[in-house]
Amino acid sequence: MTNKQQILAKRPTGMPGPDTWTLTETEVPELKDGQVLIEQHYISLDPAMRGWMNDSRSYIPPVGIGEVMRAGTVGKVIQAKNHPHFKEGDVLSGWGGVQQYTVTDGEGYYPVDTSLAPMPTYIGTLGMPGMTAYFGILDVGKIKEGEVVVVSGAAGAVGSIVGQIAKIKGCRVVGIAGGPEKCRYLTEELGFDAAIDYKNDSVPAGLKQHCPDGIDVYFDNVGGEILDAALARLRLHARVVICGAISQYNNRDNVKGPSNYLSLLVNRATMQGMIVMDYAQDYGTAAREMGQWLQAGQLKSREDIYEGIENFHATFTRLFTGEKEGKLVLKVKE
Amino acid sequence: MTNKQQILAKRPTGMPGPDTWTLTETEVPELKDGQVLIEQHYISLDPAMRGWMNDSRSYIPPVGIGEVMRAGTVGKVIQAKNHPHFKEGDVLSGWGGVQQYTVTDGEGYYPVDTSLAPMPTYIGTLGMPGMTAYFGILDVGKIKEGEVVVVSGAAGAVGSIVGQIAKIKGCRVVGIAGGPEKCRYLTEELGFDAAIDYKNDSVPAGLKQHCPDGIDVYFDNVGGEILDAALARLRLHARVVICGAISQYNNRDNVKGPSNYLSLLVNRATMQGMIVMDYAQDYGTAAREMGQWLQAGQLKSREDIYEGIENFHATFTRLFTGEKEGKLVLKVKE
Repeated sequence: MTNKQQILAKRPTGMPGPDTWTLTETEVPELKDGQVLIEQHYISLDPAMRGWMNDSRSYIPPVGIGEVMRAGTVGKVIQAKNHPHFKEGDVLSGWGGVQQYTVTDGEGYYPVDTSLAPMPTYIGTLGMPGMTAYFGILDVGKIKEGEVVVVSGAAGAVGSIVGQIAKIKGCRVVGIAGGPEKCRYLTEELGFDAAIDYKNDSVPAGLKQHCPDGIDVYFDNVGGEILDAALARLRLHARVVICGAISQYNNRDNVKGPSNYLSLLVNRATMQGMIVMDYAQDYGTAAREMGQWLQAGQLKSREDIYEGIENFHATFTRLFTGEKEGKLVLKVKE
Repeated sequence: MTNKQQILAKRPTGMPGPDTWTLTETEVPELKDGQVLIEQHYISLDPAMRGWMNDSRSYIPPVGIGEVMRAGTVGKVIQAKNHPHFKEGDVLSGWGGVQQYTVTDGEGYYPVDTSLAPMPTYIGTLGMPGMTAYFGILDVGKIKEGEVVVVSGAAGAVGSIVGQIAKIKGCRVVGIAGGPEKCRYLTEELGFDAAIDYKNDSVPAGLKQHCPDGIDVYFDNVGGEILDAALARLRLHARVVICGAISQYNNRDNVKGPSNYLSLLVNRATMQGMIVMDYAQDYGTAAREMGQWLQAGQLKSREDIYEGIENFHATFTRLFTGEKEGKLVLKVKE
């Protein structure tokens, strides 16, 4: 049986090109005792993957040259050899990498119930992006009923959940996204109070209009000019959650720092970074609550699914161009 | 009786020039019932004063054009007219402004005891700079015994107290200051564990050498490249206290934001701004504890005193050139 894999061929500077990865084919090895073979159905494409490609000190080691590209996955066990927990037919989510088949002892994988939600949801709203949104806005953002919450990358996998959780908790929510279609989606389908189209409109003007009394919590996925615009409108004791900075991930040496950071001083505000993996012991609790919101229709999940492991690079690029609607997923099961 | 006053003549862009203020002479008015006349002895010169001159939204209103320049003062009551609390001979600290005499109903003034500490100490270590250090490093920095603390502007009014308090609390303390003389003062007289001379040595290299395992708490008075160097060496769950940014105060439109702010994300760290006035209700408690440290010799206070209200501009400029040793004070009593 042949396994197609996307192998990291070199460390990119700037935006990864098609030659950043090499598509290879290898034979799936025989299982050893205690291993399972997972046929991967869906690969999660996330902005954080860009950071894992840099050879610099970070919260996890970088992907090595010649290694399968790291990625979250969901797939089905098609063989199991005396595994203590998993059996054929189990659907597992974990760090399967950008490949069609994964042989593993199961460490870091957990079973998911496809009768409650379809497979892609388990790498989206009920996976890492959803957990990031949940702990970021509740534990770091510490939102309270009636507060004004602004989120950037608002139509994306994390941002769309952040905004919906803030609405569930009784906040006024303003999303920043690229293009009228995404903005319409935020206000008409997800119930955001307002949306600002950063590609066509002024973000400072939009924030002034929609947050006339300022911002209590700003959840940032993008960095750059948009972070600066939000900082300029903080209220007293505001919290800024630094979850990502997609506008800066392809800048190696000239990351734009937030010029308006002294707004933190003037407003006695806090800017705090977060990494979802710190909350691993509480994922179960979060998934149960998010699952209830999904079933009650209070939380909507949208995946944008592309097909074919050979299209990995082209699909990955959509994270940075914004040409996607919701959580970006690559279907690799043929 | 004639009162010399420094009046704000115009709003400066960049570094204030000699024509930013006008030295005027007016007659001291007759006291009304409930007023006191204070002969000011010492004026506090602080970096925050630069911010008060800009016509922009901040934590207090800007000084108006034509108004006496705002400043902290300490002086003696030389007349009192039926004042409910203060009498002739009382020494009062408060917001007396850059002038020789202040007529006031006493609101915002508090009496100080010159048998415990000399007058200038009450606008330094026992005044606003000392309070800023105390609440900044303890309440915002939340230092714990054994942690690694780095402070910039370390030989200044705030920084020198921050470092000494951190030493009292059992931290390892590294100061960043300009020039070998200030660095020697930090390590030999104030007991800092190490000092980095940013004017002659590389701050990143110095931090690498003196904080090989990273920084737990960084107390920032300066912003710019030094803030970036500190961010690059944060430890997990580090706290960055944003107290000031003297390197940026004269930049109107091109404040340098911290390019390394994503270190907050990688290290789950927090950057928080503070304004000392928020702690006004606890000044008394802090002053008692700081007073005990002063008397026990655990805390050293150094003021750099210049003379003459007509030298206000030239003395004020020393805040930005760093040509001062400790807390900058202007003596205005002739």
